[in-house]
Amino acid sequence: MTINVTTLPSGLRIVTHSMREMETVSLGIWIGAGARNETKAEHGISHLLEHMAFKGTTRRTALAIAEEIESAGGDLNAATSVEYTSYQARLLAQDSGLALDILADILTQSTFEPAELEREKGVIIQEIGEALDTPDDVIFDIFNDAAYPDQPIGRPILGTPETVSSFDAQALRHYLQRNYTKGCAVVAAAGALDHQRIVDETAARFDSLPATSTALPPATYRGGDVSMKRKLEQTHVVIGFESASYNDPTTYAAHVFSNVVGGGMSSRLFQEVREKRGLAYTIYSFQWGYADTGLFGFYAAASAKDVPELTSVALDCMVQTALSLTNEELLRAKAQAKVSLLTALESPAARADQIARQMLAFGRLVSREEMVERIDALALEEVRAAGLAALRTTPTVAVVGDVKKAPRSQDVARRLAGV
Amino acid sequence: MTINVTTLPSGLRIVTHSMREMETVSLGIWIGAGARNETKAEHGISHLLEHMAFKGTTRRTALAIAEEIESAGGDLNAATSVEYTSYQARLLAQDSGLALDILADILTQSTFEPAELEREKGVIIQEIGEALDTPDDVIFDIFNDAAYPDQPIGRPILGTPETVSSFDAQALRHYLQRNYTKGCAVVAAAGALDHQRIVDETAARFDSLPATSTALPPATYRGGDVSMKRKLEQTHVVIGFESASYNDPTTYAAHVFSNVVGGGMSSRLFQEVREKRGLAYTIYSFQWGYADTGLFGFYAAASAKDVPELTSVALDCMVQTALSLTNEELLRAKAQAKVSLLTALESPAARADQIARQMLAFGRLVSREEMVERIDALALEEVRAAGLAALRTTPTVAVVGDVKKAPRSQDVARRLAGV
Repeated sequence: MTINVTTLPSGLRIVTHSMREMETVSLGIWIGAGARNETKAEHGISHLLEHMAFKGTTRRTALAIAEEIESAGGDLNAATSVEYTSYQARLLAQDSGLALDILADILTQSTFEPAELEREKGVIIQEIGEALDTPDDVIFDIFNDAAYPDQPIGRPILGTPETVSSFDAQALRHYLQRNYTKGCAVVAAAGALDHQRIVDETAARFDSLPATSTALPPATYRGGDVSMKRKLEQTHVVIGFESASYNDPTTYAAHVFSNVVGGGMSSRLFQEVREKRGLAYTIYSFQWGYADTGLFGFYAAASAKDVPELTSVALDCMVQTALSLTNEELLRAKAQAKVSLLTALESPAARADQIARQMLAFGRLVSREEMVERIDALALEEVRAAGLAALRTTPTVAVVGDVKKAPRSQDVARRLAGV
Repeated sequence: MTINVTTLPSGLRIVTHSMREMETVSLGIWIGAGARNETKAEHGISHLLEHMAFKGTTRRTALAIAEEIESAGGDLNAATSVEYTSYQARLLAQDSGLALDILADILTQSTFEPAELEREKGVIIQEIGEALDTPDDVIFDIFNDAAYPDQPIGRPILGTPETVSSFDAQALRHYLQRNYTKGCAVVAAAGALDHQRIVDETAARFDSLPATSTALPPATYRGGDVSMKRKLEQTHVVIGFESASYNDPTTYAAHVFSNVVGGGMSSRLFQEVREKRGLAYTIYSFQWGYADTGLFGFYAAASAKDVPELTSVALDCMVQTALSLTNEELLRAKAQAKVSLLTALESPAARADQIARQMLAFGRLVSREEMVERIDALALEEVRAAGLAALRTTPTVAVVGDVKKAPRSQDVARRLAGV
């Protein structure tokens, strides 16, 4: 396995991981901007831009984009998140030049034809409807909004039917010009590839992307309550707290804490809530790092009548982990983290995503050895402290379904007082 | 890459794919029985048994099972489908023996303790609730039931709260004894492994599984209508037909037909429904083969007011593909199928699943070369004929959401008359 990084004269970085025995390559361009970079009036425009990238350029119609890549047997995917937007192709190694040509074309020469734009807004309004119909999607949207109210980091990535309907080509260009900059972009590839060939094929292709970009707006975690009354079989609950950003020295401790709380079958949440009490089928914890903030919490779906007991047991699990994490649990979480790192290395698509995000987040690659070293070095006290730090922030409580017996943020805070 | 097959004296087959450069192995046992093997009174027992396998054996408590595998950094997964049940572990190569010991233990020594059984029934009733709350899950459950009414192949895999509640340890043992037989089981592994070591570690471990098994009950496709009125943002629609089983000589043609209709961004459904008309965010076609039958159809979610137009356009796409499939489309679908095969080969978990299912379905491994040859050999006429054959069967129409303007099976049949 060989990893290479090249910075072009334009400032665009190229990072590749050549994996022998693979016959396909996963490659793309990652932009260090997403929903978080939107102004209030731009809510949803990052995601609309990602859709519109496939809707025609000065050189290719939307149909030609789809046909060229699929005629080579490949596929194109794109994703918009809070801090990143990615455009990724998977295809035979011999066709990497085609993929890069299409990626450069859609990022620098999109035409945003009015008729295409209107139709795509309609498609996104359907996508918003789908998310609203999916309880375990919509609950995270309202949870984020309650954690970071009135801030782009907390707003749903898809936007609202109203904001999406309001955008024109000018607004898309304005957002693109501000955020899709060479310094905030990384071309990454993993699988069957030759680094120099990828560098040559990238060459001057993205040169017309702008050079400078504006800073990320800071985020302020607040917490509080949000609920959505729905007639459902289950009540869906997310309770969370502010935790480590990925730039924080405690980020590894925060991840291990979350894994012990609710990462696997042997985790405390799984054992106490599902195995001992049979209260839920799905229950897990999460730790998401952003550039300057982070969120830790758990999600569960249960019968409305069981939500009070489930909440109480889950909060106890969190507190007990922070107070009495055992060495055995720590060793288990470390072993799981290390095998997960290996597994991520084995898939070209996941690996390209990993190295691209590392370059954008840290300006360098973080080797598996370094990650393993940091995980191995974690002491019990550090992991407990990371948990305690989160549990001492204001709780964010989101509920979807029958909300009558739903927990409230202040009840959660009261229960955690003194921890 | 080296593939090996060994049949133990007991009749149990072991198939492995050694992949260099991998550090982890994905291995497990696949049983050639699933929901389809249930009697009416057993509805949901395959899935309950899969859950109960993790709930304690004569040698290990449920907690010990989770802790042993996760202390090695690994994880355990299981899945129940219509014709298969699988138990799969992912962990470091050095720990394959541990995984096989646990897998054999849970399949041959489970105790089905009454208290554990009662709790797990509660967990599954929660899982049923989650599925009911997820429109794009529940629609396929009701679709299958309408396609194969009053038959185990058509019943929801999870069972109903009533049937799940009714099972005891005796019922589980009875189902297990009838279906978890050595001749219907395959141990498969892919990734970092040594075939002989896997054979030695499997050794006599599964010998107490019974030897013979009963035949699969035949399936009779019928078709018709089913709908579920729900207050949702979108109306979800599945329209399908009977198509090729995986044992049918036309199975490759049926898969290619489905891909041309709605497999990718350049497919007819995606272009006509989403790109040209903006009627849906999600629309795709499917071709599922079973041992003696198969289903072809499409799924879409759209505004209720657009469902009639969407249905009409989608049916036209299907008919036009069957009547006027172009050579260019065929070549594109062939290229996509071939790259997909390569991609599937690259992931240990997917690869283990693929070789296990091939052994169960065909009694032999089907090489990538053989699959590519069969795809390359497909003529336009064969693919059109596979599509026509499906479109001439009785339509199955399933709708969830606002069902007022929903299509009916007889309207679909009328529209397709004469094709």
